[in-house]
Amino acid sequence: MHDLRGLSGLKVLDLSRVLAGPYCGMVLADLGAEVVKVEMPGVGDDSRAFGPFVGSESAYFMSLNRNKESITLNLKEEKAKEIFLRLVEKFDVVLENYRPGTMEKLGLGYDRLSQVNPRLIYAATSGFGHTGPYSLKPAYDVVVQGMGGIMSITGHPGGPPTRVGASIGDITAALFTTIGILAALNMRHETGKGQKVDVAMLDSQVAILENAIARYEVTGQVPERIGNRHPSITPFTSVQAADGYLIIAIGNDSLWAKFCRMVAREELIDDPRYRTNKDRTDNWDALEPVLTEIFVNKTVDEWISLLESAGIPCGPINTVDKVVSDPQVLARNMIVEVEHPVAGKLRMAGCPIKLSAVPGREIRRPAPLLGQHTTEVLSRYLGMSKDEIEHLKIQGVV
Amino acid sequence: MHDLRGLSGLKVLDLSRVLAGPYCGMVLADLGAEVVKVEMPGVGDDSRAFGPFVGSESAYFMSLNRNKESITLNLKEEKAKEIFLRLVEKFDVVLENYRPGTMEKLGLGYDRLSQVNPRLIYAATSGFGHTGPYSLKPAYDVVVQGMGGIMSITGHPGGPPTRVGASIGDITAALFTTIGILAALNMRHETGKGQKVDVAMLDSQVAILENAIARYEVTGQVPERIGNRHPSITPFTSVQAADGYLIIAIGNDSLWAKFCRMVAREELIDDPRYRTNKDRTDNWDALEPVLTEIFVNKTVDEWISLLESAGIPCGPINTVDKVVSDPQVLARNMIVEVEHPVAGKLRMAGCPIKLSAVPGREIRRPAPLLGQHTTEVLSRYLGMSKDEIEHLKIQGVV
Repeated sequence: MHDLRGLSGLKVLDLSRVLAGPYCGMVLADLGAEVVKVEMPGVGDDSRAFGPFVGSESAYFMSLNRNKESITLNLKEEKAKEIFLRLVEKFDVVLENYRPGTMEKLGLGYDRLSQVNPRLIYAATSGFGHTGPYSLKPAYDVVVQGMGGIMSITGHPGGPPTRVGASIGDITAALFTTIGILAALNMRHETGKGQKVDVAMLDSQVAILENAIARYEVTGQVPERIGNRHPSITPFTSVQAADGYLIIAIGNDSLWAKFCRMVAREELIDDPRYRTNKDRTDNWDALEPVLTEIFVNKTVDEWISLLESAGIPCGPINTVDKVVSDPQVLARNMIVEVEHPVAGKLRMAGCPIKLSAVPGREIRRPAPLLGQHTTEVLSRYLGMSKDEIEHLKIQGVV
Repeated sequence: MHDLRGLSGLKVLDLSRVLAGPYCGMVLADLGAEVVKVEMPGVGDDSRAFGPFVGSESAYFMSLNRNKESITLNLKEEKAKEIFLRLVEKFDVVLENYRPGTMEKLGLGYDRLSQVNPRLIYAATSGFGHTGPYSLKPAYDVVVQGMGGIMSITGHPGGPPTRVGASIGDITAALFTTIGILAALNMRHETGKGQKVDVAMLDSQVAILENAIARYEVTGQVPERIGNRHPSITPFTSVQAADGYLIIAIGNDSLWAKFCRMVAREELIDDPRYRTNKDRTDNWDALEPVLTEIFVNKTVDEWISLLESAGIPCGPINTVDKVVSDPQVLARNMIVEVEHPVAGKLRMAGCPIKLSAVPGREIRRPAPLLGQHTTEVLSRYLGMSKDEIEHLKIQGVV
């Protein structure tokens, strides 16, 4: 049945390396697209060399490249460029995350590729984008997290600016690129024409600053680090229990009263410092030690169970070991086990986009070995013979 | 010209409130979709009441709802349900972020809506998703940031787990929902059928943990907070200058040697503690104070200019005021000014998805007043007369 194949009609040539591009390719592949990684012979995606390893295989690489095929092409060779252009004719999307100008230097820029295939969607993810004064500067996740403002609002009062522990500079750019590709594909259904999608990591950081920009524009006050609490709802924050931290989300006065009764501290309900949400927010400095004193007496599990019975929104602050064994996370198929021909079984994050017409179809194959599908792909799309491909290998083209 | 209208063929009925749903609707609207917010008469999206305000208007609401229209419908009224169902027949997408089960209680669950319009794409963004044991629990951004693991790896060694300063629990769910909608739309071009897209905030947090899961699965070591540095590249971190922080990204030994010469500390190049990247990573505790001593002597601007001339990747840690005036951010049209009929001009983040066929078309209209387009939309789609609509207003239906 066609509708069980997801985006399987979509063919993506993925030249990207490391994280932002490969994450985009992974989301498309998880949704059913046929994603063919194009890698440098003998070397491949830089992240194949990133630890930790399972035997010879990078766990980092394996967890970002499942569902893809790999071919090798040395794009500095004329013969490889010719093969690449012939593939471009047959594919829907080219995805790359080189520094701007690299594809043009190879003679494979968007203008050239769109001549070969006017229906092609060309998606470029880069640090600063393909236009503007910083376009050619090198960028890394930590650089754009710094420049984009999120580090300035992450962290505790009086403490240093803080990098988000996952590479959201790369990952948000990957998600916006994926949206751009799918939007362009929808537009192509109407117009018959492809286009270029240009997404910058820095732009993506600005786009996720959320209300920090509105607050600054309206009040003129530069948003600061306020730790884990909410700027205007209190207590809506982390608290420290006997054996770790948890989150409480007491969003209104009646939940507050319920909480005070539950912990046998009724006197706090009518304390003028804490009566309304605004009072509690204004007097946070006084309230914080009171909460600390209350919460230190029980464990996280005890608190969660008490708070949940009282209907007070809360949750643990899970470390990664807890996340990967959480019943909800498992029930949602968010940890998947993929069997790799060399590395064996590896558990990794699943796809969070649950589509009713293609249930549980996210994982079809493990990450590819370098060039594993060169022969298959070149014969499938270009009708090349095994001998021809062997010859190209000897020449260093593939 | 058709290809200048982006996704304008796409019609979205957006029932969502506050952040995750409205952010998704905003991305679709920025790409050209016709997004009609459906709000409760007299009240509207809760975030209309979130400060700061410009006069009577919430800056928070205005910055997340540009490019949308607003109609009011009291979905508890039978007549309003009937109108809603008639609209569903004409729309492509229904987007909601209620707690699971709410739409079913209203008699407007996916099963019912897909009977009315089998081509409908029904997108639900929720805290924990529409399946699994936590499905009905209340969730907020800080709760899923805590449960999803990102807080456990954000922050400084010895310090507390740290909330990401922007609501990435909501925003990443919004982005995955957007991808799901556009994927479903592409699938509909092939099959003629719609489907349900179910995205959970918690799942989305797991999906962005990146290599933390792979590291844990392979090594058995629970990833910890390591501040702003890279786990295996050094120095790739923030450093403190005379007047603030900056990022340095010295990714290999030759950049390290270049840096040491630039700061006249050649003796560090051959110091056995710092010779290779691995040495520097292993001896970070010794290296950190050396860097602190070096960087404290000049300002951020002085360092950036020196490091850039030497070709060493670096960047400032910008506060929000710096972000919104950064030359690259402005050149990329990432700060847009929108003129609102009541609040006047407000600057907000632009759309980071730059499409070559629809350049600079992101902002077409300001956020709507509550119910501003009720008459227009009901007459456009359902052919209702002004009198009919006036009557519905008096009855409290719209």
